[in-house]
Amino acid sequence: MQLHSFFNSSTSYRTRIALALKGVPFDYVPVNIRTGEHRDAGYVDRTNPSAAVPALVDGDFSLGQSLAIIDWLDVRFPSPKLIPDDLDRRARVLELSYLISCDMHPINNLRVLRYLDQELRVTPEQKSAWYRHWIDEGMAAAERLLAKYGSRPWCFGDTPTLADCCLVPQMANALRMGCELDEYPLSQAVFRHASEHPAFAAAQPSLQPDFVSP
Amino acid sequence: MQLHSFFNSSTSYRTRIALALKGVPFDYVPVNIRTGEHRDAGYVDRTNPSAAVPALVDGDFSLGQSLAIIDWLDVRFPSPKLIPDDLDRRARVLELSYLISCDMHPINNLRVLRYLDQELRVTPEQKSAWYRHWIDEGMAAAERLLAKYGSRPWCFGDTPTLADCCLVPQMANALRMGCELDEYPLSQAVFRHASEHPAFAAAQPSLQPDFVSP
Repeated sequence: MQLHSFFNSSTSYRTRIALALKGVPFDYVPVNIRTGEHRDAGYVDRTNPSAAVPALVDGDFSLGQSLAIIDWLDVRFPSPKLIPDDLDRRARVLELSYLISCDMHPINNLRVLRYLDQELRVTPEQKSAWYRHWIDEGMAAAERLLAKYGSRPWCFGDTPTLADCCLVPQMANALRMGCELDEYPLSQAVFRHASEHPAFAAAQPSLQPDFVSP
Repeated sequence: MQLHSFFNSSTSYRTRIALALKGVPFDYVPVNIRTGEHRDAGYVDRTNPSAAVPALVDGDFSLGQSLAIIDWLDVRFPSPKLIPDDLDRRARVLELSYLISCDMHPINNLRVLRYLDQELRVTPEQKSAWYRHWIDEGMAAAERLLAKYGSRPWCFGDTPTLADCCLVPQMANALRMGCELDEYPLSQAVFRHASEHPAFAAAQPSLQPDFVSP
């Protein structure tokens, strides 16, 4: 199995966590989204028509979109289960996962920040304020969901789920961009707990083969 | 059952389609996101900590995030099934659904367009170009996915799925914003087919009780 990944991509990071939690071995295929390798015709035609990372390849089968990949992995390799079967718990896990993957991450990803720079010519201060605004709005919502429905030490109880696979890369990204996250103690507690877990540690950007320091 | 919804919200529209396809009766509770009702403390505390529409309420249970709601509905009311059980078909349905709901919709929704207006003070031309850019990037990817994996008359075969529930509102939104979509014939064929289906017709913004004409 191959994972086409970029070290700093939060969506790649999610799938690396899921693969590590399940102990599924894979070959890491770097795709440099900074230089536009995800738009190369060969990659788009053969591997991922979405022209994005990550993509999972298993023989003739290839699949894009991190949450679709994790859903697929969760059926193929059900231990540990990351998307619970129990209806209520499943709903809570998906709700928080989608808050992060739909309401937060897309607005602050590389292509959007580049558009702000290159097309709208915003100042560095405006770009930072943009990034911070969506982080704060999203983290405040995540914190409310955790306060109402969560239970420690992971987002929803004793075992990590898709929600943790989404929350940890989002918070790592925000910290890397210089955001303080002290206002979000429930999320911080999950983040600290995850940092000590070998699967979450192994998936972090600085340990990937294509890592380059800032 | 109640659906907290705004007529023009694409994510509300998705859940209305799913409810209509399944024939689940519900009370429509309007939440005016233009005037900020989704941020009212009572709504956030009691109904949706994410401070967004849609939200589904069933007795003591309430749930936000359109895709989490549709997943929950698909378990509770499995006929017709919108997220297939078959592993490969499921992967394709989720991949396209996430392309739309993660890569396209969030960047062009009301709160982001308002931020462009109010904080970044972009011109109307810059805002239109922004909207069009992300529509074109996403629709081109959707078209490639349909060309490679789709089959008519719906996105993935003979029955509508979550992918159709996501694609149709996204395209309706783009058309409302004045985008031409003729470059995307496979998506257009799905859109035309859906327009003739009673569930998709019933869910459209202009037929909702809170509809106001532009």
